[in-house]
Amino acid sequence: MDLKQISEMQIKLDQLHGFPVSFLDQHEKYAQLTKDLVGLFGEIGEFSNIVKKVNIKLDRPLEYELNITDSEKLLREELVDSLIYIIRIGAILGVDLEDEMLKKMQLNKSRYAQLRRE
Amino acid sequence: MDLKQISEMQIKLDQLHGFPVSFLDQHEKYAQLTKDLVGLFGEIGEFSNIVKKVNIKLDRPLEYELNITDSEKLLREELVDSLIYIIRIGAILGVDLEDEMLKKMQLNKSRYAQLRRE
Amino acid sequence: MDLKQISEMQIKLDQLHGFPVSFLDQHEKYAQLTKDLVGLFGEIGEFSNIVKKVNIKLDRPLEYELNITDSEKLLREELVDSLIYIIRIGAILGVDLEDEMLKKMQLNKSRYAQLRRE
Amino acid sequence: MDLKQISEMQIKLDQLHGFPVSFLDQHEKYAQLTKDLVGLFGEIGEFSNIVKKVNIKLDRPLEYELNITDSEKLLREELVDSLIYIIRIGAILGVDLEDEMLKKMQLNKSRYAQLRRE
Repeated sequence: MDLKQISEMQIKLDQLHGFPVSFLDQHEKYAQLTKDLVGLFGEIGEFSNIVKKVNIKLDRPLEYELNITDSEKLLREELVDSLIYIIRIGAILGVDLEDEMLKKMQLNKSRYAQLRRE
Repeated sequence: MDLKQISEMQIKLDQLHGFPVSFLDQHEKYAQLTKDLVGLFGEIGEFSNIVKKVNIKLDRPLEYELNITDSEKLLREELVDSLIYIIRIGAILGVDLEDEMLKKMQLNKSRYAQLRRE
Repeated sequence: MDLKQISEMQIKLDQLHGFPVSFLDQHEKYAQLTKDLVGLFGEIGEFSNIVKKVNIKLDRPLEYELNITDSEKLLREELVDSLIYIIRIGAILGVDLEDEMLKKMQLNKSRYAQLRRE
Repeated sequence: MDLKQISEMQIKLDQLHGFPVSFLDQHEKYAQLTKDLVGLFGEIGEFSNIVKKVNIKLDRPLEYELNITDSEKLLREELVDSLIYIIRIGAILGVDLEDEMLKKMQLNKSRYAQLRRE
């Protein structure tokens, strides 16, 4: 399943749940985008808290109790939640994330190719 | 092109450019993941700075000079850069983002279906 | 009590608890700074999650249950936790936050004064 | 100069510049707080981008050009800008940051004291 289809599924689900992705004017649109950005901060913050704990565990294995395998499961979940917000914000901005990623990767590829020639 | 293929392309590009996604031990892995998390913060911070400016422009249209159409172009670019970091971090954690997103969406769907029945 | 004294108290407490603020070399210093930055993100993420919920409550007062007074108490706590990380990071970088804030405020003051004259 | 005086100076400056810290209702208050949170993310994002570059420089000293002393100067500036947002948000929430920090430090002190006795 491609990124475009996943985005469309997610957006339909959001609309069902009452989260709008189309707006009457710019004020409404940016008010929603700002709220979703705060939502994204929240998810990345939760991800960060788990990374913080894993780093403490790796620094002080005997003093600090933590099961890293369990933590990784949580990290994966928070990362997916972050991705969902990125896709929502992309829908608000009308970004074709798949298309833009391919363009960006193409751009980076030629940049690096040039660097290797230098 | 599906999310899995995009991820694989991005990772190949990263490896070419010297950014590792496989590691000798957990210390190395989480040191890299922590650095990429800081990279993600940077991109979302740049995105946030543009959102901040658009919000000021919408609040004070006459006092503040900003072309919102230009800002949206930049927002799209920063969002894609954020997505690239999410995909990189997903690769480090060995997440199948496509698979996990579909699972999460399925889970959310049944949650909302239940809410509507209540 | 001034910001300098508060910073010094916080740092003593951190050292007692085993969090270093002086380092053998730049690698060690930036490894710790990077970890504390991740900690800061965690706190601001928790703050963001509460702001997100308050915003939902204000948008849909009847559908969503939340006591805003309780949420504000939590927001204050998370803000203080964020400030503690800022002070820790400032100690690692050897910033005199009080001094730098006064300088920055002086700078902003003259900037605005100039704007008002124009 | 204590944190309370610094906060009050900053707030007066903000009011002069047209950034409100008192509001007609909760909607207005949280709309402003949400915008300032986005501003805070912007500053921490800029800080993160500099940390990212310093980490690359430390990992690949010969390949990457960066003057770490210059970067530290920028880091200090971004940290102060972040602190200004924390103080602004504290003013919106009516937090006495100095008081709350002292309470939190007292709390942490007794927690650690207990840990050392165990």
